[in-house]
Amino acid sequence: MNRLLKRISNSHLALPRRSAHTIQASELRLKKYGDVETSLELNTYELKLNKLSENQVLVRLVAAPINPADINIIQGKYASLPSELPAVIGNEGLFEVLDVNENNVRGLKRGDWLLPARLGWGAWRTHSIEKCDSFYKIPNTLNKHASVTLMVNPMTAYRMLRDNGELKTHETIIQNGANSGVGQAVIQMARSMNLNVVNIVRRRESAAAQNELVAYLRSLGAEHIYTEEELRKPALTHDLWKQIARPRLAFNCVGGKQTTDMIRLLDNEATLVTYGGMSRLPLTLNTADFIFKNLKCVGFWLTRWKLQNADKVPATIAALCDLIEQGTLRPPKCEEFSIGDYQSAFKRAQAPFVNAKVLLTC
Amino acid sequence: MNRLLKRISNSHLALPRRSAHTIQASELRLKKYGDVETSLELNTYELKLNKLSENQVLVRLVAAPINPADINIIQGKYASLPSELPAVIGNEGLFEVLDVNENNVRGLKRGDWLLPARLGWGAWRTHSIEKCDSFYKIPNTLNKHASVTLMVNPMTAYRMLRDNGELKTHETIIQNGANSGVGQAVIQMARSMNLNVVNIVRRRESAAAQNELVAYLRSLGAEHIYTEEELRKPALTHDLWKQIARPRLAFNCVGGKQTTDMIRLLDNEATLVTYGGMSRLPLTLNTADFIFKNLKCVGFWLTRWKLQNADKVPATIAALCDLIEQGTLRPPKCEEFSIGDYQSAFKRAQAPFVNAKVLLTC
Repeated sequence: MNRLLKRISNSHLALPRRSAHTIQASELRLKKYGDVETSLELNTYELKLNKLSENQVLVRLVAAPINPADINIIQGKYASLPSELPAVIGNEGLFEVLDVNENNVRGLKRGDWLLPARLGWGAWRTHSIEKCDSFYKIPNTLNKHASVTLMVNPMTAYRMLRDNGELKTHETIIQNGANSGVGQAVIQMARSMNLNVVNIVRRRESAAAQNELVAYLRSLGAEHIYTEEELRKPALTHDLWKQIARPRLAFNCVGGKQTTDMIRLLDNEATLVTYGGMSRLPLTLNTADFIFKNLKCVGFWLTRWKLQNADKVPATIAALCDLIEQGTLRPPKCEEFSIGDYQSAFKRAQAPFVNAKVLLTC
Repeated sequence: MNRLLKRISNSHLALPRRSAHTIQASELRLKKYGDVETSLELNTYELKLNKLSENQVLVRLVAAPINPADINIIQGKYASLPSELPAVIGNEGLFEVLDVNENNVRGLKRGDWLLPARLGWGAWRTHSIEKCDSFYKIPNTLNKHASVTLMVNPMTAYRMLRDNGELKTHETIIQNGANSGVGQAVIQMARSMNLNVVNIVRRRESAAAQNELVAYLRSLGAEHIYTEEELRKPALTHDLWKQIARPRLAFNCVGGKQTTDMIRLLDNEATLVTYGGMSRLPLTLNTADFIFKNLKCVGFWLTRWKLQNADKVPATIAALCDLIEQGTLRPPKCEEFSIGDYQSAFKRAQAPFVNAKVLLTC
C-alpha cells in the first residue's frame, strides 16, 4: 500500500475504494439544456490516485446547494452557460481536503475546508483532483450548513448592503422575496448593522403556513414582515412610516406589479437593486419616479461582481466567516440528499414554498 | 426729472413711461391650475421707480421661453409648484439691466445681460426691481436666442453628458426626442466631444416634413437619424453596429414602448438617463437587462441638480457661453411673441411637431 492510500485508509474521511489506486467518484453532468428531469446524468467513475504534485489537492464534497441559478443553467436560460456540454455544473459547494502533498504551495492539510474559486467549475461532484490555488480556504470549525451556502446568497446580500451607498444606523431597506436565501441573509446582516428592514413575502395558502413563515423570519431577527396585499393598505404604511423612515434602498428578486408597488413606498433618492426575477415579469417604472424622486435602478449579478472584483473576494469570504462565527449569520434550513438521489433532490428544490435549501452530498 | 429717469429717457432701452416715477410693467400670472387658456392672466401695472440701493437692479425682459415644464406647472402637474397662487411663473428668461446704482455690489452696468439665479422666480415679466445677486451675468455680445435658451435645455444636455461616467472619443450615445431642445443641444455638444449619436425621431406625417426635420438635424451635425420604426429593423441596426459602437449612454424623454425598444439597442454596462416622459407612459424594463447587462437607470431633473450643485452653476453657465461663442451651440429656431399676445404664444407652443422655441418678449 503506497503512502497516499495508507493515509486515506487511516482516516474517517476515506471513501470505500475499489482498488489500490482509485476511488469511486460521481459527478452530475448536464448533457443537454432542458427539463431538470431529463437533462442531468450521474456519471460514476474510478478516479485514479497518483502521487499529488505540490500544487495538487484531492478534495471531497462536503455539500453543494441547488440554487435557482443552477436550475436556470440546466434550462439554458442563463447569461453564463458552460462552454460545451456535457459539463459538470453546480455554482456553489464546500469541499474538504482528502489528500495533499505535504509540501503543497498553500500549506493545506487534510480536513481543511475549501470553497471553489473558479467560476463555472461545477461543484456537483463527489471528488476531484485540482490545483491548490483553485480554492479559498475557510475555517473548518464553522457551522457546516452556513459554510456550504455562504458563497452565493450571503455574499450577494453582503455586497448589496455595502455597495449601494453608505447606510446609516436606523435607515430602512425594503426587500421582496424576504424568505429567499438572499432575503434571510439580508435580515440577519441588516440587523447587525442596526438597519430597519421591511420584508415582503408572498401570502401562504394557509394561516398556519403563514404563521410558521413569519415566526421563522422573526427568529432570524425580522421585525416588519408583510404580504404584498397588506402593504397596499395606506393605513398600514401610514403608521409604519411613523415608526421607521421610508426605505432608501430596495432589493428586488420578483418583478412585475409587486415591484411597482414596492417602488411606491420608497423615499426620494432611493436605489432599487434587482438581483432576481422570480415572477418572470418585467419592471414597470414611472418616469416621474426617476425625474422627481431621483430613483436609481441598478442590477446585481454576483458572477459579474466576482469577475470584476476578484481582489475583494477573499476579504468578503473572511467577513462572512466572521459573521457565521459570531452567530450573526445563522445556517439556513437545509435538507441533504445524496448525489445519487439527485432526482429527489431536484424535485424538492423546485417545489413551491419550500423553506429550505436543498444540498447534494457524497 | 430725477437722475434715474433722465438716464432711462436717454436710452434706447427705455419703455414708454406713464409718469415721472413709474414705468408700465406686465407680468403673466398663474391664477389657478388648469388649462393654459384659462389659468393665466396678464397683470399690467405701474412699477414705481425709486432711487435704487447698492444691491438693487432694474431689469427688463429680453425674452423668456415657454418650456414643456412651464406647461406642466400651469396644469399643476409638476413636482415643484409655486408656494401660493396667483404667482408669476416662467422657468427661464434673459433680462437686461435697465438701471442700477453706480456703486452696486456686483459692478453691473446698463445693458448687461442677466439670467435669473433664483429657482421659482417667474421670468414671464417685462420688468422687475431685484437684488443684484439674484442673477448670473453673461456676455451681452452672445447670440440672443442662444443666450435666452441656455439655462434649461443646453444645461440639461451639458450635465447629462458630463455626469454619467467619462465618455471616450468615438463612444456612442442614443437619444429619443432628438428634435427636442435638449436633443438638439446633445447633438451639437456630442459632436464637439467626438461622440457618435444615434438620434430617434417620431415619423412625420409627410415625407416633406420628415425630410425637413432630418435636414435640420443634419445641419446641427447629426449623422445617424432614424424613426422608431426604422430602428426596429434588425438589418439596419446590424449594419449600424458595424459602423459605430453600441450605445453606452441613452437619454430618454419619451417612455413607453419606444424606450423599451431603445434599451434593446444598448451595450452592456449602459446607463439610461430619463429626463422627460412625453408619451406619459411608464418605462418597462427587463429584469435580465439589469442583472446580466448591468443596465443602470437614473433620472435627471435640472431643478434638483441646481439645488444640489449651486456651486457648479456659474461654471456650467460659463462653459455654455463658451460653446455659444465658439459656434458649437447654435441658437434654436425661435418664434417671438409679445407677452401681451401670450394666448397666441401658448397656442403655438402647444401645437404638435413645432420645430421652434416660442419666446415671450416685451
